[in-house]
Amino acid sequence: MEKYNVAILGATGAVGTELLDILASRDFPIGKLRLLALEVGTTISFRGSDYVVEEATPEAFRDIQIAFFAGGPISKVLAPEAVKAGAVVIDNSSAFRLEPDVPLIVPEVNIADLNNHNGIIANPNCSTIIMALAINPIHQQAELKRVIVSTCQAVSGAGKAALDELNGQLRDLLDGRQPAASVLPVASLDEHYPIAFNLIPQIDVFQDEGYTKEEMKLVLETRKIMHLPSLPITATTVRAPVLRSHSEFLNLETSRKLPVEEARRILAAAPGVSVLDEPDRQIYPMPAFTAGRDEVFVGRIREDRTVPAGLNIWVVGDQIRKGAALNAIQIAEQLIARRLV
Amino acid sequence: MEKYNVAILGATGAVGTELLDILASRDFPIGKLRLLALEVGTTISFRGSDYVVEEATPEAFRDIQIAFFAGGPISKVLAPEAVKAGAVVIDNSSAFRLEPDVPLIVPEVNIADLNNHNGIIANPNCSTIIMALAINPIHQQAELKRVIVSTCQAVSGAGKAALDELNGQLRDLLDGRQPAASVLPVASLDEHYPIAFNLIPQIDVFQDEGYTKEEMKLVLETRKIMHLPSLPITATTVRAPVLRSHSEFLNLETSRKLPVEEARRILAAAPGVSVLDEPDRQIYPMPAFTAGRDEVFVGRIREDRTVPAGLNIWVVGDQIRKGAALNAIQIAEQLIARRLV
Repeated sequence: MEKYNVAILGATGAVGTELLDILASRDFPIGKLRLLALEVGTTISFRGSDYVVEEATPEAFRDIQIAFFAGGPISKVLAPEAVKAGAVVIDNSSAFRLEPDVPLIVPEVNIADLNNHNGIIANPNCSTIIMALAINPIHQQAELKRVIVSTCQAVSGAGKAALDELNGQLRDLLDGRQPAASVLPVASLDEHYPIAFNLIPQIDVFQDEGYTKEEMKLVLETRKIMHLPSLPITATTVRAPVLRSHSEFLNLETSRKLPVEEARRILAAAPGVSVLDEPDRQIYPMPAFTAGRDEVFVGRIREDRTVPAGLNIWVVGDQIRKGAALNAIQIAEQLIARRLV
Repeated sequence: MEKYNVAILGATGAVGTELLDILASRDFPIGKLRLLALEVGTTISFRGSDYVVEEATPEAFRDIQIAFFAGGPISKVLAPEAVKAGAVVIDNSSAFRLEPDVPLIVPEVNIADLNNHNGIIANPNCSTIIMALAINPIHQQAELKRVIVSTCQAVSGAGKAALDELNGQLRDLLDGRQPAASVLPVASLDEHYPIAFNLIPQIDVFQDEGYTKEEMKLVLETRKIMHLPSLPITATTVRAPVLRSHSEFLNLETSRKLPVEEARRILAAAPGVSVLDEPDRQIYPMPAFTAGRDEVFVGRIREDRTVPAGLNIWVVGDQIRKGAALNAIQIAEQLIARRLV
């Protein structure tokens, strides 16, 4: 089997760590592996060998075929350099997602878009991937007319500092001390609020008309992935004191009525989706039980009788795994299978 | 000023305690006070005097004019007995809420219904009260066409045992132990799940078509309170690891378009409602900061452009205070003001 030289930019962070775990477990055909991050000199073990983290420079991509970029503002500068050096970049940042010549890929939804890549392939926002997996199979059987999504997103989505802060706040509160906050909702902004025992209705910065950037990602990225540039979607995103896995309330209007049993069958047959929906046995998706799982879990599927054809669905998925690292690796696997690298 | 003999059934629980706090702070005109609960013999201090908790029997209401029932199945049996004994009962249980001859009252919304009472007045479900305060002022200015509500409800809504369980689970998790669960989602059912770092998409038992009893309360009680028997409402309710105050994502369709500034003005002028909606200053409602507050807080008000006239709103309110005890006391104050007791 042919092997590929792989680089991971941001190898020491949450997404980088997850990328390495999944690459190892899926037996990805790696030739040379280069790990890049700010923590130059750190040693990381992979498949029994030790790798020293190197500096992320344009030269670091010279003999690399597939480069995973874990995210962050560095992508904007380095991704074009890596492409010039000959690599195909799978980028988890938001820098290129809405560029017309950059494919934005959820493999189960729009893998054919990969054929037109120009060196950079964008990995969608975590909440977007999780929603797309649940709504695309529905759309294939009963055209979507409107999507209302409300999210409760895990603290790990804001990075390790946010997780540490949640744990510290909980210890403070359980011991009767006032909790401090300096990370959430957005570290670089003025106001910070505790997330312990709280819900913060702000993820990322505010943009036009009172919507946050995270909310607009759900709207704009979903439209691009599904090739539905005018699909009506409205989103509200909230941070919740959950460690890992994002949860989403979906309200869907469809062109024809889908009975609950049919919706369950459609979703059960959809790749990457697992149905957990047995109210009689109290079986439904919960974020505490889906961390580390590849699939997106759907449940609480109900007809919404306030419209002629509507569904309420509750969706939960590990936002670091399928919401980021796994999706990126599935893209790389398809690049190889389609000889696009 | 005339005084009234008051009884509180369930005086030792969360709602009973809140009732006593609010009665004291609002200088309610109490003559005799009788505290009833299972914990017979316990002493409770009120306005500087000690009261011994007595047994809840039909005879306990003989000289009582206003009886607050904090909730639970005992209402079904004892409320009619208390009425027979001459008391007016303000009942926080769900036993009588949908009875046609029982007024279901949110004072800011439908106080005129109080005039027709037959001895029992029902206090609505906590989530319902919080939503009604936010949507009724909108409806008065732009008729509601459809309401989609998704909730994240505090653990204290399931009682002290659930709160203790959350705290115990957090200590276990922070110390690396497996958390145990025996209360949530519904103590009397078979399956129990930890709420720490989790979201549980089940509040109360499942009923028809996959909806829970809590979800149907939001639909049916709101229709009755607002005198809109066919208002299209659909609900999804989830338990969140928050101590106190319920949060609700509301998506509203109205008969005419309300610009955000007009919606803010309408809500700012509405009794019992406080607008916290300054995205530029990162001001919005959060459950950790609304516990113990009388008002229902609204923010994140945005136009939903997926329909001709739509709004997204985020609402947070203390479910034990306005969601239960305060609302009951406001009903009692109106009974007195209208000489209906």
